[in-house]
Amino acid sequence: MAEQKTAIIDGNEAAAKIAHLCSDVLCIYPITPSSNMGEWADEWSSKGQTNLWGTIPEVVEMQSEAGAAGAVHGALQAGAMTTTFTASQGLLLKIPNMYKIAGELTPSVIHVSARSLAAQALSIFGDHSDVMSARQTGYAFLSSSSVQEAMDMALISYASTLEGRVPVLHFFDGFRTSHEVSKITDVSEEIVREMIDEDLIREHRNRAMNPEKPVLRGTAQNPDVYFQGRETVNKYYEAMPAIVQKAMDKFAKLTGRQYKIFEYFGAEDAEKVIIIMGSGADTTHETVEQLIASGEKVGVLKCRLFRPFDEKALLNALPKTVKKIAVLDRCKEPGSAGEPLYKDVVTAIAQDALAGEKIFTAMPVVVGGRYGLSSKEYTPAMIKGIYDELGKDQPKNDFTVGIIDDLTNTNIDYDKSYNTGVHKDTVQALFYGLGSDGTVGANKNSIKIIGEGTDQYAQGYFVYDSKKSGAGTVSHLRFGPKPMRSPYLIEDGSANFIGCHMPVFLEKIDMISKAAKDSVFLLNTQEPIDKVWDTFPKHMQEQIIEKNISVYVIDAFKVAEHTGMGNRINTIMQTCFFAISNVLPKDEAIAAIKKAVEKTYSKKGEDIVELNFKAIDETLDQLHKLDIPAAASDSFTLKDPVPANAPDFVKDVLGEIIAGRGDELPVSKMPCDGTFPTATTQYEKRNIALEIPVWEKDICIQCGKCTFVCPHAC
Amino acid sequence: MAEQKTAIIDGNEAAAKIAHLCSDVLCIYPITPSSNMGEWADEWSSKGQTNLWGTIPEVVEMQSEAGAAGAVHGALQAGAMTTTFTASQGLLLKIPNMYKIAGELTPSVIHVSARSLAAQALSIFGDHSDVMSARQTGYAFLSSSSVQEAMDMALISYASTLEGRVPVLHFFDGFRTSHEVSKITDVSEEIVREMIDEDLIREHRNRAMNPEKPVLRGTAQNPDVYFQGRETVNKYYEAMPAIVQKAMDKFAKLTGRQYKIFEYFGAEDAEKVIIIMGSGADTTHETVEQLIASGEKVGVLKCRLFRPFDEKALLNALPKTVKKIAVLDRCKEPGSAGEPLYKDVVTAIAQDALAGEKIFTAMPVVVGGRYGLSSKEYTPAMIKGIYDELGKDQPKNDFTVGIIDDLTNTNIDYDKSYNTGVHKDTVQALFYGLGSDGTVGANKNSIKIIGEGTDQYAQGYFVYDSKKSGAGTVSHLRFGPKPMRSPYLIEDGSANFIGCHMPVFLEKIDMISKAAKDSVFLLNTQEPIDKVWDTFPKHMQEQIIEKNISVYVIDAFKVAEHTGMGNRINTIMQTCFFAISNVLPKDEAIAAIKKAVEKTYSKKGEDIVELNFKAIDETLDQLHKLDIPAAASDSFTLKDPVPANAPDFVKDVLGEIIAGRGDELPVSKMPCDGTFPTATTQYEKRNIALEIPVWEKDICIQCGKCTFVCPHAC
Repeated sequence: MAEQKTAIIDGNEAAAKIAHLCSDVLCIYPITPSSNMGEWADEWSSKGQTNLWGTIPEVVEMQSEAGAAGAVHGALQAGAMTTTFTASQGLLLKIPNMYKIAGELTPSVIHVSARSLAAQALSIFGDHSDVMSARQTGYAFLSSSSVQEAMDMALISYASTLEGRVPVLHFFDGFRTSHEVSKITDVSEEIVREMIDEDLIREHRNRAMNPEKPVLRGTAQNPDVYFQGRETVNKYYEAMPAIVQKAMDKFAKLTGRQYKIFEYFGAEDAEKVIIIMGSGADTTHETVEQLIASGEKVGVLKCRLFRPFDEKALLNALPKTVKKIAVLDRCKEPGSAGEPLYKDVVTAIAQDALAGEKIFTAMPVVVGGRYGLSSKEYTPAMIKGIYDELGKDQPKNDFTVGIIDDLTNTNIDYDKSYNTGVHKDTVQALFYGLGSDGTVGANKNSIKIIGEGTDQYAQGYFVYDSKKSGAGTVSHLRFGPKPMRSPYLIEDGSANFIGCHMPVFLEKIDMISKAAKDSVFLLNTQEPIDKVWDTFPKHMQEQIIEKNISVYVIDAFKVAEHTGMGNRINTIMQTCFFAISNVLPKDEAIAAIKKAVEKTYSKKGEDIVELNFKAIDETLDQLHKLDIPAAASDSFTLKDPVPANAPDFVKDVLGEIIAGRGDELPVSKMPCDGTFPTATTQYEKRNIALEIPVWEKDICIQCGKCTFVCPHAC
Repeated sequence: MAEQKTAIIDGNEAAAKIAHLCSDVLCIYPITPSSNMGEWADEWSSKGQTNLWGTIPEVVEMQSEAGAAGAVHGALQAGAMTTTFTASQGLLLKIPNMYKIAGELTPSVIHVSARSLAAQALSIFGDHSDVMSARQTGYAFLSSSSVQEAMDMALISYASTLEGRVPVLHFFDGFRTSHEVSKITDVSEEIVREMIDEDLIREHRNRAMNPEKPVLRGTAQNPDVYFQGRETVNKYYEAMPAIVQKAMDKFAKLTGRQYKIFEYFGAEDAEKVIIIMGSGADTTHETVEQLIASGEKVGVLKCRLFRPFDEKALLNALPKTVKKIAVLDRCKEPGSAGEPLYKDVVTAIAQDALAGEKIFTAMPVVVGGRYGLSSKEYTPAMIKGIYDELGKDQPKNDFTVGIIDDLTNTNIDYDKSYNTGVHKDTVQALFYGLGSDGTVGANKNSIKIIGEGTDQYAQGYFVYDSKKSGAGTVSHLRFGPKPMRSPYLIEDGSANFIGCHMPVFLEKIDMISKAAKDSVFLLNTQEPIDKVWDTFPKHMQEQIIEKNISVYVIDAFKVAEHTGMGNRINTIMQTCFFAISNVLPKDEAIAAIKKAVEKTYSKKGEDIVELNFKAIDETLDQLHKLDIPAAASDSFTLKDPVPANAPDFVKDVLGEIIAGRGDELPVSKMPCDGTFPTATTQYEKRNIALEIPVWEKDICIQCGKCTFVCPHAC
């Protein structure tokens, strides 16, 4: 096995890298959260980066995803290795061509960063609804659980589709995997070359439509022969699982990373098993690791190859001791008595129960549950809750986890305070910033600095709200000695570092309950140091004292203004983080920040780089540690998110969403048909502006451009 | 219950009639086999026909099915009762809007004449692939098995969606039901009015978007609340099955026709049950009726409400004695371990096996099978074969029926000669014509004449090949004393009447093996009567003698030419049919044909009507009975469909398709990826022209219009 390098990238880039290497043509159309894959491919091709065969892949942006799928079909028929990327509604538009591409047994891969579909409301976030809506097309479905897998499975997809001729839809969780930045082991071009069989490439090209040896495709078939035609493909689908497993085995030889189409982890004598795919499989793995350490007989079966669904492989991968199974689907099909993966598993288990030679002497109980719709968190605490539910005599079927369903009582209960304790050697850092203020970018730099400069593993996940620019962002960073299987947010009471980049968050967001004992809190504020304590709400003061939190204060706005950075405070706050978090020796860290600044900003000009250097140096002088009083003062409480005179719906529902407590809203509070009252934005005072424009009547020339200054046109 | 009238219509017209009555807006886009529904609606509106509320429904044709679905969504949000019609790929384009319409709990109905999807090849024919591709959208799915049900369920759909707010996809089998002409009991406007609750209409209209009372819909929801929002609809889906059943019960009170969401027919102590939806349910019903008469413990469970899938209703509808179940799906999902309805049933049965209080003490064996893809025949013989298979110790799972799968051995065997004998009092008549020669139209007239003029029930089904104009058509007509549950073609050895409208069929098609004993064969030929016998192939001569078949001969072309009808022989052949088939007294029949001619052609001018009258009168003089010799002559055998020098694939595959034996082609003969050789039409000599154009070199002015005369541009 050759030496392998690491890379610090997100899931989209990981998949796109393999796709670009293995394609002649990439047909793209942007849709969140898959857009970056197409953007990367486009950028690489525009820079002349070549594929495995030394040519620059052609990247074609079409008029819609439907057009992209049509172009894929066409390019494949011309013998090109062809790829597309998509998500959500975009995938729906590709379904008609997917039937054709699969029906014609054409090797190809679609990479999907799986996303919710618009139903009662649109959502840009992640779940498997889109992928599941295409499960009947005849594609193979390969699921990745992490950024590492997004790269590894991408390659396994190409290797498998070339041999098996069944096209592959490779998917991973939108945002959670597509946008998580992680330190992974890179897959080198040499490994890709080893995995892609040139003979199979030649076979694919030889099947192309070609005037030199014309063939007819796209015929019309009638009742006499269509059915027979449809059954001709059976052997390809029967063979595909073994082909995928073979590619996984070959990949393991080259990289040391061994995957299975159904991969079990847990106690050998497990009685309770969760079956799941996507990033939730990683969280379940991590939780199982902790639970079996304390003697629990539990396990997790990761479904990687969802189609063709190999019932035998599933049954054989389960421990023979299993008595209760929970199958978790990250989607909802209203009106179906159970979600897709659940039904697949029940069918396999029932067939075994009805078979002559059984694998399980007693039929295990199988229940199905929904979790994580639209990137709803799926945490170790919930997983513990599911195993506890399985411990009951009659575990709930068709359950939900992670919400309170006070209408149809689908949700199971769980102990929210449960924590695997796996992060005791991990630095967990939280940063509260504003969209477009540079916080996220600086944090991505920090991950690179630590990931590249040390042996530490690093993970970054960035929570945006969909108001985008100017709305809140929360960066969740983890640094630790082991690879992370933690595709979930930093839990309450466990952040070692919290950075608050805007003082207004103090009175709006309960940041401090995220803090661990002896952690560090960094605040950017314009208040003089002796007034700062009184800007903290009472609850926060109490927590700081109780948890022995060190508080550091900087007026980053002043430093930014003074050093000519305008209102860009990201580099300043990043410097503070390195100065006080001790994740790296201070001097080393400062040098690394400067190097990163140079890399990021040099294309914007030497002076921008200089300004940043100056800001970094000044920052350290302006950073002060706050003396913590022995007791909380008679301070204020968190502000109500909306005024007291707001209508009930605004107070009860929208206000809770604004306050960041939307997760706690029970089902009954949400409109059943997506109908909301209008004119409710008037109650949301975001209060994030440092300067407020004032209309000066005397000098107004009625140019009308005030609407640009104040988008609310007040 | 008011007196009910009968109607002689096809499934498309039946559904469209209800749709037009219950809609303010119909958004249409044509796709076979659903186009006629939109055409009917368009025609009725253009004639000023009004809906229940006295207004003329607006019929809007959009640029595609995607546009039609968008327009439906928009019109619904404006409070209009809105409908669309579609099939196959058209339905795929509607999926994105279907998620929205269902997500917003908007009452509405889509009528689908279910059709295959294009995969290895396109097919315009019927199966459930399209419908199944939309099963995850959140629509309710209501299935009709016959023309009568297409009308009845259409109305039940509207009544249910208004009360339950879950939109309904109402479907029936493309061609088999959509294009079958049948004598049914009409649903009067009064009954429709009884079924449609005006209060619910008002509620629907009140939910419309309206500037007077503005609401917000189509929001973006984030991870905090989207999941809860998605679970708000549970109670609507839980309530829907009971609401549909209530509508069925109300409908039964008004019409006497009682339906159930899961409807069982068969032995009370049945041990073997088939579960099925669509027209196949009717064939199974008919077969079960015969099998239980001979003491077999069999039954059929018709799935009418496929979504929301009510597992309890399913379990309760099954006889408690059932030991073996075959679930039949009219679709194929490659890579899925079993088709959708099969998985639904297995899941229900498995849940019962795992429940505390069981319905079945021993878990019944459940196997799944595919049948009837792309309008492949599904016959009583196959059904008998399935029950026989269920009788085995280990019945085959994931089977196919109706084809020979020599690649993966999925097919079960059955005795093709099995026949329920249910048609002993039925006149079964077959007519072999050419597309556009008027045969089908005349046969539809015949059905009306018999259906309206007598107490007989009538059924007509028309087999076209997709070459359309100029290709063969076979009309399958049945007339009998009881309503027909026979959505399958007339079986071998059971036609009482066979009309051959083109002499060229004699040497190409084995028509006579369809003939029953003592049946009548009518031939249109230009041969003199004393030469006719020798134009019959030897096998045909033998069969005529053996089965004691009466043969009548007419030179319809001569009559047509002589009476100024050109080459339109349809009325002449129809006259012959009535003259010799004895389905009606001759004089009565002739008067009825004339009346029908008047109705059909009067808009084309009085002279056309007169020409037809003349042809009818002359026909009877020119119709001669053939004297049958005692023994067959040393005649020829059926011609090979392609020349002996054709390539093997043309001889083995295309030739068999041309010869009408495509049904017998085993799976191994079909290309697995839809790839065919080119330039094969040269081997098909259709030989259907009565006159052949000759190029006269001397008078050619090189206008180039010869391509119009000879489309092959010879």
